[in-house]
Amino acid sequence: MSPLENDTLLRALLREPTGYTPVWLMRQAGRYLPEYNETRRRAGSFLALAKTPALATEVTLQPLERFPLDAAILFSDILTVPDAMGLGLYFAEGEGPKFERPVRDEADVAKLAVPDPGAELRYVTDAVAEIRRALAGRVPLIGFSGSPYTLACYMVEGGGSDDFRVVKSMLYRRPDLLHRILDVNARAVTAYLNAQVAAGAQALMIFDTWGGSLAHDAFRTFSLAYIERVVAGLVRESEGRRVPSIVFTKGGGQWLEAIAATGCDAVGLDWTTDLGEARRRVGARVALQGNLDPAVLFADAESVRREAGKVLASFGRGHGHVFNLGHGISQFTPPESVAALVAAVHELSRPWHA
Amino acid sequence: MSPLENDTLLRALLREPTGYTPVWLMRQAGRYLPEYNETRRRAGSFLALAKTPALATEVTLQPLERFPLDAAILFSDILTVPDAMGLGLYFAEGEGPKFERPVRDEADVAKLAVPDPGAELRYVTDAVAEIRRALAGRVPLIGFSGSPYTLACYMVEGGGSDDFRVVKSMLYRRPDLLHRILDVNARAVTAYLNAQVAAGAQALMIFDTWGGSLAHDAFRTFSLAYIERVVAGLVRESEGRRVPSIVFTKGGGQWLEAIAATGCDAVGLDWTTDLGEARRRVGARVALQGNLDPAVLFADAESVRREAGKVLASFGRGHGHVFNLGHGISQFTPPESVAALVAAVHELSRPWHA
Repeated sequence: MSPLENDTLLRALLREPTGYTPVWLMRQAGRYLPEYNETRRRAGSFLALAKTPALATEVTLQPLERFPLDAAILFSDILTVPDAMGLGLYFAEGEGPKFERPVRDEADVAKLAVPDPGAELRYVTDAVAEIRRALAGRVPLIGFSGSPYTLACYMVEGGGSDDFRVVKSMLYRRPDLLHRILDVNARAVTAYLNAQVAAGAQALMIFDTWGGSLAHDAFRTFSLAYIERVVAGLVRESEGRRVPSIVFTKGGGQWLEAIAATGCDAVGLDWTTDLGEARRRVGARVALQGNLDPAVLFADAESVRREAGKVLASFGRGHGHVFNLGHGISQFTPPESVAALVAAVHELSRPWHA
Repeated sequence: MSPLENDTLLRALLREPTGYTPVWLMRQAGRYLPEYNETRRRAGSFLALAKTPALATEVTLQPLERFPLDAAILFSDILTVPDAMGLGLYFAEGEGPKFERPVRDEADVAKLAVPDPGAELRYVTDAVAEIRRALAGRVPLIGFSGSPYTLACYMVEGGGSDDFRVVKSMLYRRPDLLHRILDVNARAVTAYLNAQVAAGAQALMIFDTWGGSLAHDAFRTFSLAYIERVVAGLVRESEGRRVPSIVFTKGGGQWLEAIAATGCDAVGLDWTTDLGEARRRVGARVALQGNLDPAVLFADAESVRREAGKVLASFGRGHGHVFNLGHGISQFTPPESVAALVAAVHELSRPWHA
């Protein structure tokens, strides 16, 4: 492997000194980029894109060609793990992801097993290895997975949901069943993330996209407890360096102390949380990642710069901040806004690190 | 007006002693009730139902016939005010509310004016008066409005949204325009709520449904500041009693202290906030309303009872709690679950008030 030229992200995630605040964007390889849409068209479908290592590599690197971002993140789908469990992932036109065989009862749950990352998920680890070669040490590569509860939402609902009626009915009626699913998911996610590290991932992120839809006590029991198990099972070092882990619960601002106590190195924040307050609450224990409202990128370059400056000022002087959006970048974002954002973060953050 | 037989809600909202915890449910007159669907069918459309005082009265009282709830809430739509401003509210089949003439630029904003509650919104105050007569003092009647920012979301987007791209673009590009809309909305909402009180409403609730989609600082500037102006302009007393006000920002758990400082009497909470912690944070200043996850009502009666008990225990001993869901009741709720919930709250709360 080539030596890492820019390790700012890895140092920031471990709260080590850096000369500026590193920046990357959730979903940075995505539909706001015309070149991404072109590759996707060539692939034929989103799933073909995610499942073909050469194409996943191509789109992973696209945003780095345009913007001086401080990290690459594996291009993949959040639902690869349940798909590898045999649930039959597909994308209905304009409807988002669906499963042919959702998990609804005892019999469905009994059939679940931890997939072998070296077999059913080989296309992911192959992509990780190919991306690392293509990156040639420019910036670190972040691997990722959905959280056990977030995966369970899709597995039980059979797709997306706006009220989580099916999975929450199971949670309140048959918590034992949901716990069995979450147990399998936690083991599967741990093995999956560790396989990504073995293939070359240099940092890891757990996306707890739907943990924030839970009641405060249910969040701890059904989402956080399993994230904690995943984090505890992660490989700590690879290639002679620590592999930092980031946990991001969308809508989890009220639970930061608990999330920071999972053993992760960094906590992701959405834009509803004041970064400075979050730092006072948990910044002595973890790095913080976030948290610009992605909607700011719909504004002009001057507003983007001003709002980015506010996020940096909110974190304040010192280290341990990774700049990001508070959620994935919108497909309607003008790429010029991203250029303005990355430039602003790099420039405006230097005084805070002096 | 008939004397009030059950004023438990009003006393709880003012943190006065009560023998048990009063309970009502957001959207309690709604599609989970077959009799509601029957009246709606007769009305021809949702808007006809909301705009015909006799029918609005009929559906407002329906849940009270089934369940011993401690309050009625005016049946109406959240968008009556912008409709009265001439934006042309309509409901596209299966798509939710839309406006024919959304507010997008200087010229649109210049045309906005505060509607006269006694003219364009007369059907609402007529409904309030008719409901009061029909209630004949059984329980108090709650009037309501959307918050200035929540109304602005619909007015600028032209309907619902999952990313608020249009209104947030205005917020970051042309904050001056959005402030002008919010100024009109704040005056309109104040006049509207006061007209409801004049017609007979005995408590008021401001639904800040979309304030929680804002970044923490934008929430204060664009939502909370205008809620504060509305609350400051509300009539404090009617029929010789204080008219308590409730502010509910969905997703506002991180901002409770600020919401409690608006001058309202009570703060609504969604289910992501620990009620006991909320009480420690702001319970000396305001009553708290909430906060069961509406999804609990999809479970069996025993689970409903257990989860209701947990909410009551979380608030703990003493007064100043109004039991509610953390969001509107789902149309898929079995009415038996509501019966179980109301019975559980009434029974299980007594020891906490002893």
